[in-house]
Amino acid sequence: MTVTITAFERSPDGGMGLARDTRVRWALEEAGLPYEVRPVSFAAMKEPAHLAVQPFGQIPTYEEGDLVLFETGAIIFHIASHHAGLLPNEANARARAITWMFAALNTVEPPILELITVKFTEGDKPWSKERFPLIADRIRNRLGQLSARLGDAEWLDGAFSAGDLLMVSVLLRTRPSGILNEFPSLAAYVARGEARPAYKRAFAAQLAFNTAQPVAG
Amino acid sequence: MTVTITAFERSPDGGMGLARDTRVRWALEEAGLPYEVRPVSFAAMKEPAHLAVQPFGQIPTYEEGDLVLFETGAIIFHIASHHAGLLPNEANARARAITWMFAALNTVEPPILELITVKFTEGDKPWSKERFPLIADRIRNRLGQLSARLGDAEWLDGAFSAGDLLMVSVLLRTRPSGILNEFPSLAAYVARGEARPAYKRAFAAQLAFNTAQPVAG
Repeated sequence: MTVTITAFERSPDGGMGLARDTRVRWALEEAGLPYEVRPVSFAAMKEPAHLAVQPFGQIPTYEEGDLVLFETGAIIFHIASHHAGLLPNEANARARAITWMFAALNTVEPPILELITVKFTEGDKPWSKERFPLIADRIRNRLGQLSARLGDAEWLDGAFSAGDLLMVSVLLRTRPSGILNEFPSLAAYVARGEARPAYKRAFAAQLAFNTAQPVAG
Repeated sequence: MTVTITAFERSPDGGMGLARDTRVRWALEEAGLPYEVRPVSFAAMKEPAHLAVQPFGQIPTYEEGDLVLFETGAIIFHIASHHAGLLPNEANARARAITWMFAALNTVEPPILELITVKFTEGDKPWSKERFPLIADRIRNRLGQLSARLGDAEWLDGAFSAGDLLMVSVLLRTRPSGILNEFPSLAAYVARGEARPAYKRAFAAQLAFNTAQPVAG
């Protein structure tokens, strides 16, 4: 059954791989699943046809026959549940890997997303510059805790899992600000993620997609 | 096997039910599972013994024999995977219910948590009052989209699920600000959640826990 995902017609990051379709592409590559990509423009994202699939007007979505999903975490969990390589089989190890999926999205990513609020959504506000160091310190707090837990391990809990896939993807967002490199063990962890062949294929695919020249009218 | 969860020794909300242990208590009550609660003080939360269980120094955690979990979403998913009543059996319906779990925690809750940042974490800052309406509008945007998707339905996708449990719990946080009541269909949805016997038992249990008098030294 063909898998179709949606992605920004043109990602705001211009192909840096930070848009959430990269996370789903990576999971699909780890699972060895072919997929198609349907581009969605910013205008189309808020129209009824897309809202019927994604009620919050975002990307990515996932379609596979009758099944229509949204939310990156749920899509990756679905892929991981039906294909080997992203979640361990042993029940307790599996529950712990799922814990890291939620931890990446709910505990580590929210303060990181405030960087976007402060720079883009509220970049024109007088408080924007003063808030930046407050937000940066909240991110450092979380990254310090994560770094302490990771220790010298290669991945967060045994073999690479969907929890690592999401954590690496979330941490990548802290590299442009320089914060990631303040935590050498996390920077190395992210580099191990980026070195995986499946990540490389996913990154190359999103880059090609985002830098394709539009057909001249 | 005994289930033990952790909760604030004294919740910052004084028993309004907004602390995350209420969500886990609710899931345990829906599943009909008895559980014990170990209180953790704010000081103990940042100590090695608790950090070994919860690397980010938060509550709740979940212990069941050898299994130790953290992250509310992961704990509730674990309970839902092993007991009837929180996730449908049919594969596609199950994947969609899991989508709503992630949507509650990753898409709807983050702007709501900014209410806490603006009021408590940055309440002493000069921009706090000016930021409040910006944040409130971001919440209204999400709640408008959610309300459009819910329509006249009782729950988000067929029967009550762990997705509804988390969404109702997240929306409850918007009631003190008055924003929830701007969306009557969502207010009614939350009320349906609160009317469930399992929610009532969970709420009463956390209230009793938070209002118990400390033993005089």
